[in-house]
Amino acid sequence: MVIDFIADYYNNIEHYPVLSQVKPGYLRHLLPRSAPLAAEPIEEIIKDIETHIIPGITHWQHPAHFAYFPCTASTAGILGELLTAGLNVVGFSWVASPAATELEAIVMDWLGELLNLPKPFLFSGNGGGVIMGTTCEALLATLVAARDRKLAEIGEGEIGIGKLVVYCSDQTHCAFAKAAKIVGIKQGNVRVVPASKTTSFGLCPDELVRAVRSDRDRGLVPLFLCATVGTTPTAAVDPLLPLCRVAREHDIWVHVDAAYAGAACVCPEFRHVIDGVEGADSFSLNAHKWFLTTLDCCCLWVKDPSALRKSLSTNPEYLRNQASDEGGVIDYKDWQVTLSRRFRCLKLWMVLRSNGVANLRNFLRSHVRMAEAFEKLVAEDARFAVAGGIYMLRLAVGATLTEARHVAEAWKVVREQADAMDVEGIVGC
Amino acid sequence: MVIDFIADYYNNIEHYPVLSQVKPGYLRHLLPRSAPLAAEPIEEIIKDIETHIIPGITHWQHPAHFAYFPCTASTAGILGELLTAGLNVVGFSWVASPAATELEAIVMDWLGELLNLPKPFLFSGNGGGVIMGTTCEALLATLVAARDRKLAEIGEGEIGIGKLVVYCSDQTHCAFAKAAKIVGIKQGNVRVVPASKTTSFGLCPDELVRAVRSDRDRGLVPLFLCATVGTTPTAAVDPLLPLCRVAREHDIWVHVDAAYAGAACVCPEFRHVIDGVEGADSFSLNAHKWFLTTLDCCCLWVKDPSALRKSLSTNPEYLRNQASDEGGVIDYKDWQVTLSRRFRCLKLWMVLRSNGVANLRNFLRSHVRMAEAFEKLVAEDARFAVAGGIYMLRLAVGATLTEARHVAEAWKVVREQADAMDVEGIVGC
Repeated sequence: MVIDFIADYYNNIEHYPVLSQVKPGYLRHLLPRSAPLAAEPIEEIIKDIETHIIPGITHWQHPAHFAYFPCTASTAGILGELLTAGLNVVGFSWVASPAATELEAIVMDWLGELLNLPKPFLFSGNGGGVIMGTTCEALLATLVAARDRKLAEIGEGEIGIGKLVVYCSDQTHCAFAKAAKIVGIKQGNVRVVPASKTTSFGLCPDELVRAVRSDRDRGLVPLFLCATVGTTPTAAVDPLLPLCRVAREHDIWVHVDAAYAGAACVCPEFRHVIDGVEGADSFSLNAHKWFLTTLDCCCLWVKDPSALRKSLSTNPEYLRNQASDEGGVIDYKDWQVTLSRRFRCLKLWMVLRSNGVANLRNFLRSHVRMAEAFEKLVAEDARFAVAGGIYMLRLAVGATLTEARHVAEAWKVVREQADAMDVEGIVGC
Repeated sequence: MVIDFIADYYNNIEHYPVLSQVKPGYLRHLLPRSAPLAAEPIEEIIKDIETHIIPGITHWQHPAHFAYFPCTASTAGILGELLTAGLNVVGFSWVASPAATELEAIVMDWLGELLNLPKPFLFSGNGGGVIMGTTCEALLATLVAARDRKLAEIGEGEIGIGKLVVYCSDQTHCAFAKAAKIVGIKQGNVRVVPASKTTSFGLCPDELVRAVRSDRDRGLVPLFLCATVGTTPTAAVDPLLPLCRVAREHDIWVHVDAAYAGAACVCPEFRHVIDGVEGADSFSLNAHKWFLTTLDCCCLWVKDPSALRKSLSTNPEYLRNQASDEGGVIDYKDWQVTLSRRFRCLKLWMVLRSNGVANLRNFLRSHVRMAEAFEKLVAEDARFAVAGGIYMLRLAVGATLTEARHVAEAWKVVREQADAMDVEGIVGC
């Protein structure tokens, strides 16, 4: 019944408005005030989902969903989640389910090779990958690893956490400043370098040099740079090659956040957007964003897993076991912020196999073609300009089911609104 | 096919050894070296899961799984996950899927009432609940909220993060020290109070007073106490009432970690283990541990959600929307460490409805009865003593499918091992 419900949902999804039309508080008076004492039949629950929950859904899987960044689903991804819930193992240590750990390591090497990540990011090159929930967790884990390594170097007592400075641009996702705050970086030490249209909203390496030098002159300690490939506001690409060069000179950990755009790098023709990643320390993308893998699936690769382990290891009596004591196995609990972890690699493995790399590439290419078609539509209307300025419209092509007609329809809506406004120069993208 | 696979898995689960018998590295030579270029049929993938993955699974759902703490699954929980993956919405803000936010608030009030949590922890009492992945995240979020509130009070510049002290016992889960380290608490300022058999391994309030006074005398600033209801080593219960009294006197945030045992409090006869929780600031349990809700589902309630929001809010241009600007809606992204979040409340809602409270209570009671029966078996064997000492055996009853016969079988195994060792006085529990 639930499988049928989901199948029907996808068959009918275009009949729903993309954005939920409910008003705040709509649900509380529709549901009972407390949990039922007696069991209720699944038919009843599904009926309530149809009548009470679906109207409150903003349909991220709707083919005309162009908001935020996409969060793609697919049959393989959904079935992978189903299997993960069915087996319901907790793979914090190798011994707690060896397959969960080993499949994750294998699939992360598979995907790393598809992305043409430099060998030092792969297990086969003494780096390695780990799957987390979200980019926020990847940022936390790498920030803490970098922080503790730096504090060990400079001596915590003498200088301390209050002197550490992290760098990003004003286009970097707000998750970075939040993660920095969580790990104890002083808010005044989050250095936000302004990006501008002259660098296509990429972080300018010269500006980074200036900021780093100024901080060093004031006795502060540069720690971490978050470079972005595909920024949230405009999908801008920070120039990794020169940024990593600056960072290396000042012993700054570079994390490359390719949460959304990274998936495109499995296509050779788009791989250039991460040129220079060989100079970075860590790299992450969200397979749930644009790689059909359903929320959540953040893939993080690091060159030096021992940096994560030094900061994030725990070894209490109740988790000790022979395999871990002997070494030679991965205990992913020591690579991440949380202890418990879901068997997330199963769905990523199923997406890779069930689609095959060739189809996945074609899927990504079809979205890029649709985005290019939209760009062309915008360019043909004199009231709109492609690329940034003061006021931005932003259309993200990437929902699994999107076809060219949905993009055309979106453009029609934008034009109708522009007509109604009777304006002469809207800056859009 | 996948549903059938899962059904067969549960039908045959007792034929598997609980603990995976594979050797480290078993999987790499069984799988191809890289992802396939062409799509593979689902039949092929499921066959590989049967032959390659299942042997590497440690079967947490096996009825004779008594290790760690249980991680329960159920039909309702698994189907809830399936629906969550099918809808695949990202409910970081109310507008991004109103139903995801509103259902979570409602279900957290439902469960809070079932636990007889004091009104100030519920939305209806100006507190509120939020679902995270794991207790680690709940600890991180509350620690950061407490830290920032304290730093605002005492002035970050003057005293700083290096003076803050957090408290726990030597029975507290290692996740707490790790979370404290992540948020920048100096490792020397994690005060671990030894617990002993004289207090049934609960944290002794007098010892806490001594530690706090000593820290204050040295110019340090007490910040946070993690009290545990159901510790990982021995399921000990810290005495909340006197601990919260001490904490209040010294303006210390108290978090009650009832990750495992908390679920039992939906039964009135077990509710007494959290007596005194009215003096705490926050309370969490993992519904995936002992409440049939599949990994992951950590339920956190706080009395003062604004403390979380002050620390964890973000409001970038690309997430702004009318509903949030007008207030009056919950944006759960501001209650938690990560931005993106899965629609986790759906499975908790389905577990509550599909089982009904009466059945859920009976399920928990059946486990307690089986644990009592095991205790009796141990007591009858003079070579074993119930309660702590130097060497502990630990048996956690809680897997969904466990019946009395599995417990009896476990005891048979323990006795056989004891016979083989020919010892006279094993201390066990």
